[in-house]
Amino acid sequence: MALVAPVTVYKVQCNTVAETPDLLAVEEPLEIRLGFGPVDARQQRSLAITMRTPGHDEELAFGFLLTEGIIQQPADIISCRHCVQDATKQGNVLRVELNPAVVVDWQRLERNTFTSSSCGLCGKATIEAVQALTPGRLASSFQLSADQLLALPHQLRDAQRAFAYTGGLHAAALFDKAGQLLLVREDIGRHNALDKLIGAAFWKGWLPLTQYGVLLSGRIGVELVQKSWMAGVPLLAAVGAPSSLAVQMAFEAGMTLVGFLRDERFNLYTSPERIDLMTHVNDEAVPNH
Amino acid sequence: MALVAPVTVYKVQCNTVAETPDLLAVEEPLEIRLGFGPVDARQQRSLAITMRTPGHDEELAFGFLLTEGIIQQPADIISCRHCVQDATKQGNVLRVELNPAVVVDWQRLERNTFTSSSCGLCGKATIEAVQALTPGRLASSFQLSADQLLALPHQLRDAQRAFAYTGGLHAAALFDKAGQLLLVREDIGRHNALDKLIGAAFWKGWLPLTQYGVLLSGRIGVELVQKSWMAGVPLLAAVGAPSSLAVQMAFEAGMTLVGFLRDERFNLYTSPERIDLMTHVNDEAVPNH
Repeated sequence: MALVAPVTVYKVQCNTVAETPDLLAVEEPLEIRLGFGPVDARQQRSLAITMRTPGHDEELAFGFLLTEGIIQQPADIISCRHCVQDATKQGNVLRVELNPAVVVDWQRLERNTFTSSSCGLCGKATIEAVQALTPGRLASSFQLSADQLLALPHQLRDAQRAFAYTGGLHAAALFDKAGQLLLVREDIGRHNALDKLIGAAFWKGWLPLTQYGVLLSGRIGVELVQKSWMAGVPLLAAVGAPSSLAVQMAFEAGMTLVGFLRDERFNLYTSPERIDLMTHVNDEAVPNH
Repeated sequence: MALVAPVTVYKVQCNTVAETPDLLAVEEPLEIRLGFGPVDARQQRSLAITMRTPGHDEELAFGFLLTEGIIQQPADIISCRHCVQDATKQGNVLRVELNPAVVVDWQRLERNTFTSSSCGLCGKATIEAVQALTPGRLASSFQLSADQLLALPHQLRDAQRAFAYTGGLHAAALFDKAGQLLLVREDIGRHNALDKLIGAAFWKGWLPLTQYGVLLSGRIGVELVQKSWMAGVPLLAAVGAPSSLAVQMAFEAGMTLVGFLRDERFNLYTSPERIDLMTHVNDEAVPNH
């Protein structure tokens, strides 16, 4: 379950070539299977295969199941364990046993289905589909000052054990209204890092995360907004840029979206009322609260 | 089909807050459908839905189909067009009509299948599965000097029209043995950018790309090595870090893998014989050719 793997590389720099040891972010496939049906005739079905960094696999599965709208509470899970039939492949297949009361809408989850004629898919439909799974707009009173926000990337960098060594791991972090990082999860994939973080908070019974914010080390695609919305997160900040659809979905969700949070600056895209800019500056361009 | 969309943001920087116009990378869903069967009873089946930046959709589909091992040559495609039944959703559903001679292995493509008991999935199996679809190890004589390699990121930056404005688009570029960029494709997703690039080269009849290299603006996960291998690319370079499995697969493929190509430096992970380090330096640590 190592996050990093050793390797020998040729480093070419400043007119020198050196053969040196280095570290890589580990990437391995993980298959998430759902077990269901009566105990005497257990069936299982493969739900997803993702390329992930090993570690916190159960949290990854819980976060994925929650943000896909399959489970709502820890009681929905009976058990979760790695399959161990083949020693060489051990650790890359995870089986989650759901409470029989949980209804899985396989049709919605399947992507390869026969379609007849209807052509229909767009950003608006994407947002509406997620909206239907959430309790609606985020109405949290959560607030953070601009200075607290600007301090978060420094905290994240300190907390990321592996990043400094490989440059190859994304991080997702949960912080509270005092601007303190509470949890950090890392993965080669941005979506997995957030699933692990949300899954960890889910298992601690912290959901919905109405009094927390999330910080991402990368860019913000629409699926990261979706996952945060499903978990009830009112403030999503990232070191990188958001996409057009990410901003649209955050707007519809009533979620505060912050991008380019680095080098002592940030951009504020939606729901600015959750960032107290007054403590930072006193400027006429400050939005009305 | 714009790559960027306008937005108004609060920019917080250097103790000032300014409400200013900005640009976002566009993200919209794209569904790729395959049409097949006799002409009098055309059926279609949804193959994949991806979040992508609109533009070069046909190339994205071709690159995806090729790197998934579904098609091999331009003649495998009869037609490719957007569905236009609903004006509001126009442009986000693409239908590809395959030559009836193309056999699609749907079972392999399906991820949500009922499984009975076998637990088996690992990095080695991932590599072997890709290996089975390729003609084997890459035996190309393609070579580039260290100085040519170091010049590539500057060329890419110059060529990326949208990146400078949004900070949110990934790029994939094709270059030749003279170190010249020939094609650049951009997308919000790394995999899509590479699919678009490979699809464009495929449609031009350039495959297999045994005398070309590929440069990526981000990190190198195993799926990007897979796509490059399927297209016959002997040299894959990236501004970011490779993963452990990416390095393993590149090693098995006989592909030269270069990471952290930025700030006048790079790391060389596999098949170093394709980079002529002699032109750059004269050092005892230079690998034997």
